[in-house]
Amino acid sequence: MVGSRKTTSVDEEVAEVGKVVVEINGTMNEAGARGLLRKGDVAQVCLRVMCMAASVTALSFMVTAREASTVSIYGFQLPVNSKWSFADSYEYLVGVSAAVVAHSLLQLLINVSRLLRKSPLIPSRNHAWLTYAGDQVFAYAMISAGSAASGVSNLNRTGIRHTALPDFCKPLHIFCDHVAISIACTFLSCLLLAMSAIQNAIWLSNN
Amino acid sequence: MVGSRKTTSVDEEVAEVGKVVVEINGTMNEAGARGLLRKGDVAQVCLRVMCMAASVTALSFMVTAREASTVSIYGFQLPVNSKWSFADSYEYLVGVSAAVVAHSLLQLLINVSRLLRKSPLIPSRNHAWLTYAGDQVFAYAMISAGSAASGVSNLNRTGIRHTALPDFCKPLHIFCDHVAISIACTFLSCLLLAMSAIQNAIWLSNN
Repeated sequence: MVGSRKTTSVDEEVAEVGKVVVEINGTMNEAGARGLLRKGDVAQVCLRVMCMAASVTALSFMVTAREASTVSIYGFQLPVNSKWSFADSYEYLVGVSAAVVAHSLLQLLINVSRLLRKSPLIPSRNHAWLTYAGDQVFAYAMISAGSAASGVSNLNRTGIRHTALPDFCKPLHIFCDHVAISIACTFLSCLLLAMSAIQNAIWLSNN
Repeated sequence: MVGSRKTTSVDEEVAEVGKVVVEINGTMNEAGARGLLRKGDVAQVCLRVMCMAASVTALSFMVTAREASTVSIYGFQLPVNSKWSFADSYEYLVGVSAAVVAHSLLQLLINVSRLLRKSPLIPSRNHAWLTYAGDQVFAYAMISAGSAASGVSNLNRTGIRHTALPDFCKPLHIFCDHVAISIACTFLSCLLLAMSAIQNAIWLSNN
């Protein structure tokens, strides 16, 4: 009887230890999953911050792009007064950049408030689809604005080849530098938006 | 006994009828699912055909855009000889359009061969991701090319405002028309590629 009791108590102890191990395992798995979730969340917030920085830079460099100089065409000294608002493409870039700054700021605020409340960054499939669509549309708009502006800038830089016009960027190099930095930041911002969209697409395909 | 036998045979008949009903239901469900699949497949093939048509039109109108005329600058009659290859943006558009024609043709051939073999258009998740990535990249390239070309065309049309240059599209209206049609088709092709990418993203999120 004593032997039998001992066996039972040993069995119980083993069962108890087993339960504890299972519990510890469960807690570790949960913590691991949470850690992974946090990593994705942090990446998402970093993307938003970088995207906002890039689009703010693009916007500010374009808005400050202006210069007055003289250019010589066929021996005539002509005054040129260059400003971003003289070209439709540059105005388009400013408009799109401003919209992307607003979008990124909004998304960043939503993400930070969710992180502070310790709720998941993507609460539902509908939310993920909405964010995906927004990122996708703004990525298209940014690459479009950057391309339009760089097409015009390239024409400014090389001159128009079917008439013999001079290079505008020699007398207006400060203007051209500002525009170039703005365009580079526009493409960077587009890339970050596209990465954010891909992150959402992966989430949608996994959940 | 006879009563019992009758009951059993009635039960068997009911079971038989039930089985038949279940079978018919199953067949109908299967047919419905197949019909839905076919509808998605047909939409996919239609998108590819339209995309190829749009990009071929964009390519051919751009490549045939050339015109010789004279333009008056400050009273001087200058000969202008306009050709698509004089502007980098137009060359970029031709390159991207040609790539999209090749991509669409390849995808169309793959789709048609799959339809003829009666196998599903999207065989695996990897295949869906690959098609999605391809469509996405080409959509970005197309909107970029269209925007760059329209930025330059807009400058041609309105003249460069920081110097007092005339409107190039008055003497060169055939050239400008060709370019405008080409750009419109480029944007249409981009839209079709984006729709195709969305179709793939929906498939990925559902499967």
